[in-house]
Amino acid sequence: MALPDIPVVDGNGGLTGNAAAVLGEVEALLDGLLRTAEGGMIDIRGLPLSAADRRWLQAQLGEGEVEVRLSIAGASRILETAYPGVWWIEHRDERDNLVSEFIQVAYVPELISAHPDDVEGGLDLLRSRIAELS
Amino acid sequence: MALPDIPVVDGNGGLTGNAAAVLGEVEALLDGLLRTAEGGMIDIRGLPLSAADRRWLQAQLGEGEVEVRLSIAGASRILETAYPGVWWIEHRDERDNLVSEFIQVAYVPELISAHPDDVEGGLDLLRSRIAELS
Repeated sequence: MALPDIPVVDGNGGLTGNAAAVLGEVEALLDGLLRTAEGGMIDIRGLPLSAADRRWLQAQLGEGEVEVRLSIAGASRILETAYPGVWWIEHRDERDNLVSEFIQVAYVPELISAHPDDVEGGLDLLRSRIAELS
Repeated sequence: MALPDIPVVDGNGGLTGNAAAVLGEVEALLDGLLRTAEGGMIDIRGLPLSAADRRWLQAQLGEGEVEVRLSIAGASRILETAYPGVWWIEHRDERDNLVSEFIQVAYVPELISAHPDDVEGGLDLLRSRIAELS
């Protein structure tokens, strides 16, 4: 009789140790944010992380009070983590496939901020609209 | 035979003209934002607006690409309007009643921004967590 097909799991449940290094990087970026107001981005998909590493990292960072959804060429979601100033960002393509994931360390995730050129364009439009109405 | 009960609607469909004044105020705040980086808030519930005025105002402002949900003592929702830098903010109490509505003119709605004290508190927690893990 053949032995049953038992999945082989290493002692760390698939963790490579790289996720802990990412947590250390988040710590360094938060320290930088407080000292210089400059945070930074970590490209999760660009790192040698296993699926277990990613789950571990998300569990470590936890969930905060803010969720942002953006619909700009596909959907993006920005979740505040339990650590204020640390944001988990997911981008999806137009077929809803997850195409990139980042951790951003910033007071405000950059994507949300209105660009002055766009504000100016909007103000011009609003003025035309108001002129039409009166 | 009695006449049927026909609802009486004034010529403006319930519009008081006050909503158009709010649109003018949004224009002035956007202009200020571009000139001095200072925007402002308009307390919708504090103004003499009819339900029709509010609907008209929301229709005029339209919808943008960003939706933010916050769960801080009840739920809040911040919707970008079609005019970049103009945000429609709703606050609900713990029983989901709409308790206040604002228009904020700002590059980033203030509520989203992480406070430096909270970032510092989070960094301390993260350092303890990293020390526990190693």
